[in-house]
Amino acid sequence: MYKLKCLKCGREVSPLSTGSTCPDCREPLFLDVSLDELATREGIRSLVPEELKRVTLGEGRTPLVEQGRFLLKLEFLNPTGSFKDRGAALTISRALMAGWKTVIEDSSGNAGIATAAYSARAGIKAKIYAPADAPQGKLRLIRAFGAKLETVKTRDEAHRAALEDRSGVYVGHVVEPFFIEGMKDIALELVHSGKKFEAIVVPVASGTMFLGLYKGFEELTKLGLVSEVPTLIPVEACGYAKLTQYLRTVSLACDEGGKSLLADALRLTIVPRLHQIAERARKVSPYVVVVGDDSIGEAIKELYSMGLPVEPSSAAVYAAAKYVAKDLSGRVVVPLTGNGLKYVPTPNELLDKYLFGGP
Amino acid sequence: MYKLKCLKCGREVSPLSTGSTCPDCREPLFLDVSLDELATREGIRSLVPEELKRVTLGEGRTPLVEQGRFLLKLEFLNPTGSFKDRGAALTISRALMAGWKTVIEDSSGNAGIATAAYSARAGIKAKIYAPADAPQGKLRLIRAFGAKLETVKTRDEAHRAALEDRSGVYVGHVVEPFFIEGMKDIALELVHSGKKFEAIVVPVASGTMFLGLYKGFEELTKLGLVSEVPTLIPVEACGYAKLTQYLRTVSLACDEGGKSLLADALRLTIVPRLHQIAERARKVSPYVVVVGDDSIGEAIKELYSMGLPVEPSSAAVYAAAKYVAKDLSGRVVVPLTGNGLKYVPTPNELLDKYLFGGP
Repeated sequence: MYKLKCLKCGREVSPLSTGSTCPDCREPLFLDVSLDELATREGIRSLVPEELKRVTLGEGRTPLVEQGRFLLKLEFLNPTGSFKDRGAALTISRALMAGWKTVIEDSSGNAGIATAAYSARAGIKAKIYAPADAPQGKLRLIRAFGAKLETVKTRDEAHRAALEDRSGVYVGHVVEPFFIEGMKDIALELVHSGKKFEAIVVPVASGTMFLGLYKGFEELTKLGLVSEVPTLIPVEACGYAKLTQYLRTVSLACDEGGKSLLADALRLTIVPRLHQIAERARKVSPYVVVVGDDSIGEAIKELYSMGLPVEPSSAAVYAAAKYVAKDLSGRVVVPLTGNGLKYVPTPNELLDKYLFGGP
Repeated sequence: MYKLKCLKCGREVSPLSTGSTCPDCREPLFLDVSLDELATREGIRSLVPEELKRVTLGEGRTPLVEQGRFLLKLEFLNPTGSFKDRGAALTISRALMAGWKTVIEDSSGNAGIATAAYSARAGIKAKIYAPADAPQGKLRLIRAFGAKLETVKTRDEAHRAALEDRSGVYVGHVVEPFFIEGMKDIALELVHSGKKFEAIVVPVASGTMFLGLYKGFEELTKLGLVSEVPTLIPVEACGYAKLTQYLRTVSLACDEGGKSLLADALRLTIVPRLHQIAERARKVSPYVVVVGDDSIGEAIKELYSMGLPVEPSSAAVYAAAKYVAKDLSGRVVVPLTGNGLKYVPTPNELLDKYLFGGP
C-alpha cells in the first residue's frame, strides 16, 4: 500500500487526488510506501512497488564505471539522456493511474524532455514551460516528442507560468512526490554494486536527486541493507546557489561574481522543497560546492578525454567531486546526470572554447 | 584461451599480431574462444572471456522494452550512443593487449565516435576517416573525444584511405574480429531476458551486428542454451543494398530509384565480409528488407511519438520490423542502434520535414 504523507503535520492523502502539497499546511508531500512488501525471492529489486510502475522506457540500472577513486554513475544513459527519466516514469505512471489527460511541467530542459517522452509513450498530452534561452537542442527534443512547448523569459518564470496554467494537471518535478520516488533506486543500485564509497556528490537545482537519494538510503537503513544515510555533498552553480545560506560553502571558479552560463540545468532559484533539502543536508552534508564556468569547462574537457560524453551541468558535478576527493580518503560517487549528445553535435561558442580550444 | 581462426583455410594466428585477415588466404578472421571456460557460478554472464575486457565505459546490458509484438533492444543507450560501443570496447582492449599506440578506423560516424571514445579512455591515439557529408554532429563528437579526424568524399573512400594509412594499426570495424566478438552478448542478453521471439531484424552495413549475433547464437547452441540460430532478417538502405543479390528482396519506399539520404549509417558499399554475411543469411534469412527515406521518415515520427529518441538509420530497422511483423505471427526483436540525440538537437531540413512537418 502507498499514500502521500505530510511530514510536517502528519496529514495523509491519496496520490490519485491531484495535489503534490499538503491540503492543510501546503508542505510538499512525500510518498509513503510499505517497505515490507518490497522483498521478493531474489531480494529487493526496487524500492518502488511494482504496482506504481505503469509506463517505462527502460530507465534505471545505469552503468557504474570506476575511474581512479571515482565511481561514475552514468545517469546520462537513461532513455532520453538524463536522470530525470527515472522521475518522469513514475510521475506519468501516477498520471495514468489518476486518469489525467494533460500534464503541465516546467523545466530547464531535461525534465521537460523526459516528461514529453514518457507522456508520449503513455498517450497523455504534455505542456512544457521552459526558458527561451535553454539550449535550443533541448527545446527541439521537447517538441519532437509531440509536447506543446511554451517558452518564457527565465527558468523561474517558467515555474510560475506552469503553476498558473489550468489547462491540465501540474506535475512539475520541483514538487512532485512521485518524481522524487523515482530517484530512490539510484541508492539501491549503488548498494547492489557492492562497491564501497565515502560520499556522493549530488547536483541540486530543485533537489529531486538529493531528496530521492536521502529517502532511498533512509529506507535501505530501515530494511537493514545499510547502516546510515551516507555523506551527500550538494553541488550548485555560481549565481544560482541556495544552500550556501545553510551550509559551509566551497567555491570553485566563482570569483568573478558572475552567473554560470554553462550549467543550464542548475539555474532554478525558486525551490519549493529547499527547506526539506536544507534540513537533510544539515545532517549529512559537511559543505556545499558551488562551481563556475571555468571549472566546468576544464572538467568537461577532462571527461571527454576519458571517453564520457556528458553535458556541462554534469561536468560541474565532476569538478566538485575532484575537490571532494582531495578532502576525503575513500571513494566518491559521481552521478553524471545529462547526456552531452544533446549539446556537442551543435556548434556552441561558449562550450567549444573549452572542448576544441576555440569556436 | 583464445586465438584468431580462418574459417576458410583453417589457419590459426595470435590476436596480438596486427592482422584481421588470414596471412595465407586474406579471408577476414574470427575469434575462437574456449566456450567451456565461460561458465561461472551464476551461469554464463558473457560470451566473451573476462581476460579480453581491458577497457570499458559501461557498454552492453541495454534495456529491452516491449511495444506490442515488438521487443525493442535499446542499443542507442550504449555510452557513446550506438551499438558500436560493444565492438569498440573489445577492439581497443585488443589494442591495449597488443601495445598499439595509434589505431586507424574508417566510419560513417558512429563507429568513429565509439573508437575515439574508447581510445581516449585507454590512452591510445585514434585517427578516424569519415565522409565529409556525415552528420556534422557526429564529426564534432569524434573530435571532442580528441581523435584526429580525416574527412574524404564518400564512405567508401574513407575505407580505402584508412587501409592505406601507415601511421598506425588499422582496426576498422568492417574487418576487425574483436569488433564482431563484442556483438555476441546481444544474443545472450536476449536469451537471459526470457522473452520468446520469432525473428530479429538486423541492420547491415558492414555486417558486424549480423555476424556477431549469428556467432553468439551459434555458441549459445553449442552451450545448450538455445536450439538453433533464430531467423535474422537483414535491413539495408535504398541505393546501398548488397544482400539483394543473394536473397529475396522486399523494398519499402525505394520506388524512386534514389539513394537514401536519411540512413547515413547504412551507406557503406565496400563490405569485406559480405560473402560471410551472405553465407549465413542463406541459412537463417528468408529475405532482406530494403528501406527508403519516406518509410524511414514515417517510422522515426512514430518512434518519437512512442518516446524513443533514435537516429534515422534505426528508424529504417523499425520500418522493416513493421513489415516483418505482418509476415510472421510471433514477436520480433528490433535493435534500435543509434541515438537521435546526435541529430535532433540540430536543425536538419530533411529530418525536420518528417519530425516537425516542416523545417
